[in-house]
Amino acid sequence: MKKADVLIRKGTTSDVAATLQLINELAIYEREPDAVVVTEEELREDGFGQNPLYGLLVAEVDQVVVGISLYYYRYSTWKGKCLYLEDLIVTETQRGKGIGQQLFEATLSIAREENCRKMNWQVLDWNEPAIGFYKKYNAHLDDEWINGSIDIKLNQ
Amino acid sequence: MKKADVLIRKGTTSDVAATLQLINELAIYEREPDAVVVTEEELREDGFGQNPLYGLLVAEVDQVVVGISLYYYRYSTWKGKCLYLEDLIVTETQRGKGIGQQLFEATLSIAREENCRKMNWQVLDWNEPAIGFYKKYNAHLDDEWINGSIDIKLNQ
Repeated sequence: MKKADVLIRKGTTSDVAATLQLINELAIYEREPDAVVVTEEELREDGFGQNPLYGLLVAEVDQVVVGISLYYYRYSTWKGKCLYLEDLIVTETQRGKGIGQQLFEATLSIAREENCRKMNWQVLDWNEPAIGFYKKYNAHLDDEWINGSIDIKLNQ
Repeated sequence: MKKADVLIRKGTTSDVAATLQLINELAIYEREPDAVVVTEEELREDGFGQNPLYGLLVAEVDQVVVGISLYYYRYSTWKGKCLYLEDLIVTETQRGKGIGQQLFEATLSIAREENCRKMNWQVLDWNEPAIGFYKKYNAHLDDEWINGSIDIKLNQ
């Protein structure tokens, strides 16, 4: 395993197209190729407008964005302000070089700086490589919860 | 089952003490009585300061707060802006009167008004009454995900 020469930095609006490409790549890996409905325009407005709904870190190799961490602040009734790591994506050809680890640790640093009492995320129960990765951090992994959701049709 | 005479309204700073009491009650029910570290002051500042981290609905019976819905906006890389229902609590003596249902539906209305593509939440896999409740809404219930977390020690 060779460490790549990686720059981790805050994302900007110029990274939105590459971000959407990585999101689509992840949806295919997670066996839901048609699930992505968010648009480039929404990602731009929602992340970089007046009231950002999410934060973005990008990993660059040779000036190309090869990975992202997308996060937001959640609020736990027990712990207060926490950081929720919604997605950590590294493009397939750049995996195994420690880029995911750098993105994960940079996100954890933001959680610390922002006085969050926890960083949370989810992992699919069949995604063994990811589960093994998180175990190295002595992360607490809990399969006692079921995700519930209701889809809402937007008026457009 | 008798319907209670319930007022559902947006929470204010005056509801914070009652909210914390309900949060503690839920922690006992979920078998984690010592898990609540959030303080009344934090709940006040984080929910009603300049950049609110969460929203609050309360249910009132005879001018007493008997239930809450605490929510925030999450950001799905696939669906964009969503509403996350962090906790729906009704005090034990007032259960079975449809108050939880009213709080749940009022929260769903906010998700619709705020152009969210989904409302999400979690339920413990042994909490049969709650699972039965959500099934009535044809909610999607998914047990394929594991929750990961890392605790962070705050510098104080």
